[in-house]
Amino acid sequence: MKLTDLEIAQQTELTHIKEIAKMVNLKEGEYEPYGNYKAKLPIDLVERLKDEKDGKVILVTAINPTPAGEGKSTTTIGLGQALHKINKNAIIALREPSLGPVMGVKGGAAGGGYSQVLPMEDINLHFTGDIHAITTANNTLSAIIDNHIHRGNELNIDQRRIVWKRCVDINDRALRNVNIGLGGKAHGIPREDGFNITVASEIMAVLCLSNNLKDLKNRLSKMLVAYTHNGDPVYVNDLNAEGALTLLLKDAIKPNLVQTIEKTPVLIHGGPFANIAHGCNSNVATKLASKLGDYVVTEAGFGADLGAEKFLNIKCRFADINPSAVVIVATVRALKMHGGVPKDQLKEENVEALLKGVENLQKHTETISSFGLPYVVAINRFMHDTEAELEALDNWCKENNHPVELAEVWEHGGNGGINLAKRVVGLIDDNEPNNYAPLYTLDQSIEEKIETIAKTVYGADGVDFTKDALKDLKEINDKGWDKLAVCMAKTQNSLSDDATKKGRPRDFRITVRQLRPSLGAGFIVALTGNVLTMPGLPKVPAAMNMDVDENGNAKGLF
Amino acid sequence: MKLTDLEIAQQTELTHIKEIAKMVNLKEGEYEPYGNYKAKLPIDLVERLKDEKDGKVILVTAINPTPAGEGKSTTTIGLGQALHKINKNAIIALREPSLGPVMGVKGGAAGGGYSQVLPMEDINLHFTGDIHAITTANNTLSAIIDNHIHRGNELNIDQRRIVWKRCVDINDRALRNVNIGLGGKAHGIPREDGFNITVASEIMAVLCLSNNLKDLKNRLSKMLVAYTHNGDPVYVNDLNAEGALTLLLKDAIKPNLVQTIEKTPVLIHGGPFANIAHGCNSNVATKLASKLGDYVVTEAGFGADLGAEKFLNIKCRFADINPSAVVIVATVRALKMHGGVPKDQLKEENVEALLKGVENLQKHTETISSFGLPYVVAINRFMHDTEAELEALDNWCKENNHPVELAEVWEHGGNGGINLAKRVVGLIDDNEPNNYAPLYTLDQSIEEKIETIAKTVYGADGVDFTKDALKDLKEINDKGWDKLAVCMAKTQNSLSDDATKKGRPRDFRITVRQLRPSLGAGFIVALTGNVLTMPGLPKVPAAMNMDVDENGNAKGLF
Repeated sequence: MKLTDLEIAQQTELTHIKEIAKMVNLKEGEYEPYGNYKAKLPIDLVERLKDEKDGKVILVTAINPTPAGEGKSTTTIGLGQALHKINKNAIIALREPSLGPVMGVKGGAAGGGYSQVLPMEDINLHFTGDIHAITTANNTLSAIIDNHIHRGNELNIDQRRIVWKRCVDINDRALRNVNIGLGGKAHGIPREDGFNITVASEIMAVLCLSNNLKDLKNRLSKMLVAYTHNGDPVYVNDLNAEGALTLLLKDAIKPNLVQTIEKTPVLIHGGPFANIAHGCNSNVATKLASKLGDYVVTEAGFGADLGAEKFLNIKCRFADINPSAVVIVATVRALKMHGGVPKDQLKEENVEALLKGVENLQKHTETISSFGLPYVVAINRFMHDTEAELEALDNWCKENNHPVELAEVWEHGGNGGINLAKRVVGLIDDNEPNNYAPLYTLDQSIEEKIETIAKTVYGADGVDFTKDALKDLKEINDKGWDKLAVCMAKTQNSLSDDATKKGRPRDFRITVRQLRPSLGAGFIVALTGNVLTMPGLPKVPAAMNMDVDENGNAKGLF
Repeated sequence: MKLTDLEIAQQTELTHIKEIAKMVNLKEGEYEPYGNYKAKLPIDLVERLKDEKDGKVILVTAINPTPAGEGKSTTTIGLGQALHKINKNAIIALREPSLGPVMGVKGGAAGGGYSQVLPMEDINLHFTGDIHAITTANNTLSAIIDNHIHRGNELNIDQRRIVWKRCVDINDRALRNVNIGLGGKAHGIPREDGFNITVASEIMAVLCLSNNLKDLKNRLSKMLVAYTHNGDPVYVNDLNAEGALTLLLKDAIKPNLVQTIEKTPVLIHGGPFANIAHGCNSNVATKLASKLGDYVVTEAGFGADLGAEKFLNIKCRFADINPSAVVIVATVRALKMHGGVPKDQLKEENVEALLKGVENLQKHTETISSFGLPYVVAINRFMHDTEAELEALDNWCKENNHPVELAEVWEHGGNGGINLAKRVVGLIDDNEPNNYAPLYTLDQSIEEKIETIAKTVYGADGVDFTKDALKDLKEINDKGWDKLAVCMAKTQNSLSDDATKKGRPRDFRITVRQLRPSLGAGFIVALTGNVLTMPGLPKVPAAMNMDVDENGNAKGLF
């Protein structure tokens, strides 16, 4: 019988964090242990190591996700482990799981099988409290805003135009739209509000894009919270709240060190949404990993059209990272779905659908090339993949000159990714110096930036702006916010803005419906449809199967 | 110039937590370090040490609080330090500060002057995440309730009778009364809800009254969340949520080890409200402290009429603790306020008012005697106290046979409390075996229990129940919940239920307006007035003065 992820995790003997710290050349006192298997790394380490040579940063991305799953995190972890197997000093840099999805549908988000990060119970639950600190900072700001209005509203804030929402790190649809301040004069000013899930809070994006505490405070101070009755923007620093918010985040900005099931060092830090935010782990963690290791394996949310695009256009620009190579994860199952197979027929062999679905993969390879980066396709093997299907996919890649390797890291851990690891190292060595460049410059107009992404990354013919979006655009130009980056909020399920269009849609345009300034993060979010920033729980939440025994051992996480 | 608390704290060289752990005979591996100056103690330590001799538990309580302040936490910490000075193996057991008041009015709650617990920045901010875990468990339960209704409402929950509220650990009056589930069919069922501050969540009380993980899960499962349309109670275990909630709390139940400014070991753990809950640190921490030390100094919220009453009637009963002595903290300033002096005239000497106000202290000494316990009055010296006032208070105590000692622990740390420490040790030695007993037995009726407290502790002539309270009482009796303890929610500012009545009110009755079952905690809350379970922020919140420098050093905490 197959073991569950939690069983595999619980059978693994963990190495004390001081040994993991030693592996990345940190002495005692250079890290703060959180229990025996987690540590926080001091924020000034980045500064202290700034003149050290940078390690090679490898981004793991994927085709457009389908309900079949791609195993991007699992591949990322497996690749890191495999690099260790071939004696490379590699560090993995991942996002922190949000409790909402863990208690909702996912039940866990720390890799799988023999490519997991540990202690998975901690990582999947409260971990070192980073996300709770963000929730607290977010909601402290909300309380300060409502208190300001209640206490006389010196800033003349228009209670109908407060753009700052509250948040919880829970899937709670009933909090999406709320009325607050009810009950009479003593209980605040009645107004409409809503809750995001914490990972959709701008503070999460800000924390992840900040390079140090000073940068963090500066970014927090610039966040837009509301408009006055005269239409003027109100920022965090108008409320004098940036000091308290930064104080609340002073530990959350420190990256967390943990280990994989094979004792490969991992930094897990930050986890912003990949639609209304940029979907990558923190700048600080990736930079630090590149100082501590020769190779950094990191990932970005959703497919390459969202996660990789933002990693390469936003994060690398802001963090001054020069990435070296990209791994594009594809699975036979998901490509068959892109080729038209419904979810319940995925177990049946279907080479024809697979070879139709590969055009989704093809587009993402072109995208990575447009950034001037080498890539390798990693075929993440799933249980029901047939030999004929795997061979067909491998052949297709080779015929189209795509470097390709089979990854069996879920079943075999690092050993299942050795070929992939060797191939990635080879790509990097062959490609020095690399030609990475973002697709747009910040001094281009917002329309130009969006059009560049839509055409080059999505394969769209062009971009339409709704009336509302044009109004937003005028506001952004008037206020001088047009020199920021662009963060696209688009369905992850399609290259287009229509979730039902699988494969490689052609002859389509993208419609931008709203532009939302995230001034602290440093980008304008372009919404191409309704983006839900607060998930709901399913009929039977994963939480229903969770438990803990008398000795504190978790059950029901996976 | 006087140093601020934060300056004193930041000037103190902290001892590594492994040295503090050694002081309480814990070996490496028997505790989990959280950074270099905090540790969590494993929950199974209580079980492992259960046959060890119990140390002497000393409760620090106070007269009815006034805006003048009593310095109860400071005295508790100072007494612990003083016991060390006289070579006693003492451990201090305190409550965790809530972030809400820290960011609101208080700016910190970790003692003061040279009697502080450290690292005060961490303790006052997120600490080890216990309160965040409680917030998350509380709100996960709320999301499960609303999701249950949204998904078909199999349990037939009446959305107008959901007694479980959401919570945040922030002073946020705008969340006291909210409407949720708005925005249409996809976004839940519209209903009224409200947010408590997290320390008022029943989960905080449950965590603090649980003796182990099994007890915790059992208590969580019994919490009342709603009534059905037929009027039947709906418990957490009807929703099958107790496993997930316990899992979310598996680390929060572990006590936190820190140190004072003089390196005295301190367990800081849990901090329930002292009105709608019992206002004491956790059972687990106090029990563990009594196994690890010969003397445990602990405190309870507000004055002896609330905190000590609940410590002695609820906590000691549930935790099977046999306390040894009580310290009643009084200050000249506060007694002068009880004697009628307004706050702005406290700096002026006023022996007459002082000797009028002492009747408040007198009543609390009688209360402690009624529990069969010895006590000492600790006069906590404040800067503007005059020699004449201090002498008058000392004389009054002596004339009335109240053991009394001056405490100067704010200014002098442990050295300022040596006489107090010696006196407490003497009291305990003289009083063996002690005669402690709770004031009521659980098999008495709810009315009898409340009447006992009102007459013996408050000095009331009797108790009246409003129509609503009588209805609640009938429900409680019908459901068989009447054998639980009683938790009084009364103003802390007066011995009576009228906050304006200072000193020792006479010829008054107590009115019970509502009875609210806290079935997981194991008590019925008797509300004698409006108890605000969500504070608001002041005009200029303490947060406005907070900041952090580039190296992570906090500013504005005190």
